[in-house]
Amino acid sequence: MRWSQTLIPTMKETPEGAEIPSHVLMLRAGMINQLMAGAYTYLPLGYRSLRKAEAIIREEMDKAGAVEVHMPAITPISLWEQTGRVEAFGDVLIKFDVRRQGKKVPMALGPTHEEIITDLVKKFVSSYRQLPLTLYQIQTKFRNEERPRFGVLRTSEFLMKDAYSFDSTVEGLNASYDKMYAAYCKIFERCGLDYLAVEAESGPIGGDASHEFMCITPNGEDTVVYDPKSKYAANVERAEIGKRNVAKSSVEPKPLTKLHTPNVGSIEAVSKFLKCKPHQMLKTLIYSADDRPIAVLIRGDHEANENKVRRAVGAKKLALADNETVEKITGAPVGFAGPVGLKVAVPIWADEDVAGMANCIIGANEGDHHYVGANLDRDFKVDHFADLRNAAEGDPSPRSDAKLEVRKTVEIGHVFKLGTKYSDAMGAKFLDDKEQQHTIIMGCYGIGVNRILASLIETKSDANGIVWPMSISPYEVIVSSVNAADAEVAAASDKLYAELQALGVDVLYDDRDQRPGVKFKDADLIGVPLRVVVGGRGLKEGNLELKWRTKEAAEMIPLAGAAEAVAKLVAAERAKYK
Amino acid sequence: MRWSQTLIPTMKETPEGAEIPSHVLMLRAGMINQLMAGAYTYLPLGYRSLRKAEAIIREEMDKAGAVEVHMPAITPISLWEQTGRVEAFGDVLIKFDVRRQGKKVPMALGPTHEEIITDLVKKFVSSYRQLPLTLYQIQTKFRNEERPRFGVLRTSEFLMKDAYSFDSTVEGLNASYDKMYAAYCKIFERCGLDYLAVEAESGPIGGDASHEFMCITPNGEDTVVYDPKSKYAANVERAEIGKRNVAKSSVEPKPLTKLHTPNVGSIEAVSKFLKCKPHQMLKTLIYSADDRPIAVLIRGDHEANENKVRRAVGAKKLALADNETVEKITGAPVGFAGPVGLKVAVPIWADEDVAGMANCIIGANEGDHHYVGANLDRDFKVDHFADLRNAAEGDPSPRSDAKLEVRKTVEIGHVFKLGTKYSDAMGAKFLDDKEQQHTIIMGCYGIGVNRILASLIETKSDANGIVWPMSISPYEVIVSSVNAADAEVAAASDKLYAELQALGVDVLYDDRDQRPGVKFKDADLIGVPLRVVVGGRGLKEGNLELKWRTKEAAEMIPLAGAAEAVAKLVAAERAKYK
Repeated sequence: MRWSQTLIPTMKETPEGAEIPSHVLMLRAGMINQLMAGAYTYLPLGYRSLRKAEAIIREEMDKAGAVEVHMPAITPISLWEQTGRVEAFGDVLIKFDVRRQGKKVPMALGPTHEEIITDLVKKFVSSYRQLPLTLYQIQTKFRNEERPRFGVLRTSEFLMKDAYSFDSTVEGLNASYDKMYAAYCKIFERCGLDYLAVEAESGPIGGDASHEFMCITPNGEDTVVYDPKSKYAANVERAEIGKRNVAKSSVEPKPLTKLHTPNVGSIEAVSKFLKCKPHQMLKTLIYSADDRPIAVLIRGDHEANENKVRRAVGAKKLALADNETVEKITGAPVGFAGPVGLKVAVPIWADEDVAGMANCIIGANEGDHHYVGANLDRDFKVDHFADLRNAAEGDPSPRSDAKLEVRKTVEIGHVFKLGTKYSDAMGAKFLDDKEQQHTIIMGCYGIGVNRILASLIETKSDANGIVWPMSISPYEVIVSSVNAADAEVAAASDKLYAELQALGVDVLYDDRDQRPGVKFKDADLIGVPLRVVVGGRGLKEGNLELKWRTKEAAEMIPLAGAAEAVAKLVAAERAKYK
Repeated sequence: MRWSQTLIPTMKETPEGAEIPSHVLMLRAGMINQLMAGAYTYLPLGYRSLRKAEAIIREEMDKAGAVEVHMPAITPISLWEQTGRVEAFGDVLIKFDVRRQGKKVPMALGPTHEEIITDLVKKFVSSYRQLPLTLYQIQTKFRNEERPRFGVLRTSEFLMKDAYSFDSTVEGLNASYDKMYAAYCKIFERCGLDYLAVEAESGPIGGDASHEFMCITPNGEDTVVYDPKSKYAANVERAEIGKRNVAKSSVEPKPLTKLHTPNVGSIEAVSKFLKCKPHQMLKTLIYSADDRPIAVLIRGDHEANENKVRRAVGAKKLALADNETVEKITGAPVGFAGPVGLKVAVPIWADEDVAGMANCIIGANEGDHHYVGANLDRDFKVDHFADLRNAAEGDPSPRSDAKLEVRKTVEIGHVFKLGTKYSDAMGAKFLDDKEQQHTIIMGCYGIGVNRILASLIETKSDANGIVWPMSISPYEVIVSSVNAADAEVAAASDKLYAELQALGVDVLYDDRDQRPGVKFKDADLIGVPLRVVVGGRGLKEGNLELKWRTKEAAEMIPLAGAAEAVAKLVAAERAKYK
């Protein structure tokens, strides 16, 4: 493609309202244009990259045996009512009525398609002989964003690859899941992304396996706990903590003293009022575990992890107790609970770190009062110690002797063992080889295609612009003519452009009558991996200049045979992403 | 792809509610599944064909120099208000509010994208140097269908290729238009469609050029006038009529007689009441041409053509006069106008056929009264004769000595010279080489991708099912194993399947353990062009059976070298659609 014949509106300045590299550079490189908050037109460069990501996804899904379909974007609201997801999605679900023969018909734009695909499979699949089956689509999804921001990272419509597996056995689900997991790794590798496969919490319904595929970037909205040594990664809800070796504190115990702490209930307020640090405080949380109350003790600077508590206690359901229960058990308003002098005896659970605390500050089970100098065993007892909190920076890794790091990430994919949540709700069943009826077992698997581009830019760009991998770059090579108005330059450039195209190289030809500085800056900005400069003294000497986007230095190659030489370099670079 | 590993839910019976071949066969062949009225999921076979059509369109658009972009489906309502199209689209435009930070924001789903693209080009194009530019996208469009029907022919969401050209001169627009026209011809040829490029009326704004690309089928909703000899085709609004050679009638004139015709105003009612044929009647229509009234006389069995009248009269605007004007001019209520005794003298225009009429039945310009025996020149005068009516079956062709045929058609594409309608409304301007500002001149070009499939089925299927061209068929070859459970058959089939895939043939392998009759019926139903049967006596003798979907007879080929032989046949057939 000749630059002069397409639309690449590059910009020198950072556009207003753009904060993060992917947003800034996609706008500056002329990849996207904002139509309104949270809605972008993909301009020619942007759409080429998006389609390259899409093609890689399609290839790998097909190789993994998934079969492509395409479902409507407009869906009947009734299907979402069957699974209770009209409420679950709330304002995120875009709903409207259309007029049909004088009647209003309620519809919703699909934010995902579990209900639609389950309804479809229910209709056409009835025997174990038809399973396993994995169906996928690459489709525009719609989710209203209350606060659209960060360019294409948070928009109300986006391109998603969503796949759904259907199996007759749990082993089958595991095999389908593993295939998708492997395909995702391959997809993100081929896209040139540094990704983490992060263990994610999936709750009691989804079975115990769910992975999020994440890219580490300071602008991410998710948080991941990461061990750089073992590559163990998990989201905060899920992350295990390694063995802590908590030793009893050697600090001299102080006497237990009750203090008047008027109107200070929160950790922040208490530490400010008593001029202490949060890690000197001990939080007491009253939970309802399968409707039975328990007390959970967590060091003041830590966060309780409800999934860990639920599993430790062996409960199916766990939630913070309601105010009434808290007041009954502690005899005080919410905010003043403590393990000393509870009015009703309940099992007391404590996170492992609590064993190493001394002279704790705790609620006094009395409004506007705290104890200082509370000590384990002397003042209160713990029934059970366990890992009950979120992992934090510096915690021991569960998989190596390294320390855990906490990092911001962007989610680019998610694989999830659904189990029978949707097939149960919608009655999707099959007959086994003994004519017995069972519910189909499902998995679901998503990739945010637009986020692949944004994540690459977040993690790979430099001060001069985007740095694309060969596989996703809108073009593989950019031919820049220096002094394009010069007949000799134009002839040599035209010839190289034609030859590269004939050799199957995806080439952008910057044929504009612009100063070399402008052309080189634009080439760096749009991030094409390999630049070939035609013109100047090099051309007079029968040479062309080659420069990789990732390297500082350029090199000269002879004009004769240049197209073949460039095509060979491109082929070698392509092979890295196969 | 193995049949057993994908989802092809073929059906023996015609599904309820499906009326026309494309709807029936797409359902029966397992190409689509209805989610709700007017919304279909494309199942694996259907989506493969759709993507093949899409790929051909993309290739030809790229070759024609058009550049691909992708605009949002959700658009701000404000853009549609700028051009008055919120009203113009009415209930077809799907509108809703989304909640953003506590506020309701009004949106619409794009039924087409003139406003969005013009807004984009306005932002980035400012100089003649950036023109010409043709941008296109292949995208799901949304138009509420009051009465969805005919399968994928009339749905509320559909895949559309929409392109928009931007030029600095009318000559430029003409060149852009011609390129798109040529690309459309190539696209439809490569899709194997028998299409007509039909001259269409485009109204005073759009300039005089607009073509619809149509397929002739009895189930079409459009009507086209067609000369099979010269290939001239035009829609009814546009079609010219050849020289008519109307001779004065030799019938004996009867006396002019007024009859009481109580409550019979329409042609149908009058002909029933007076027991005459519509062609004996003469309609008198009062039009307002640039706000001046005229009378237009049309034979009772013909339809007035307002565009022809407008052009003949030389008016910019033409509309039927309002009731008040009609009553003032005729002195009678609407329905009783006639050329004899008008109360106000107005220019009288008549269609050419009126010159050959005698003893006409006309309105008497008096409520509930008609004249019979009205004769031209004796009883009334005509100021101007011209072609003022729609062409009808049997009319002379304007391009040959053949007679015009009137046919039902399905529209698959439309090319349109927009002129400055949108660029004016939205202020999209450019500076010429003298720094003078002008409005950008636009064209727009649409293809209904889903309709390519439906039209192929409407025009090419037979009693056994679909008959795909090689270019659009979901697979190029189907390998059917007879007695799939037999180890020898399975081994030979597996080998052929693998070899064909290795040779780049797009092959479906019917590996199901089903009776041959079921497999052959399904193969015919889904319409794959070439069937290869492995098994039976043929295989024992070292042969395979080849059968083209379009031919009655099968032929045997040796098993040795069969894959290469089939690949060669496929290549030859493919070449017909390049």
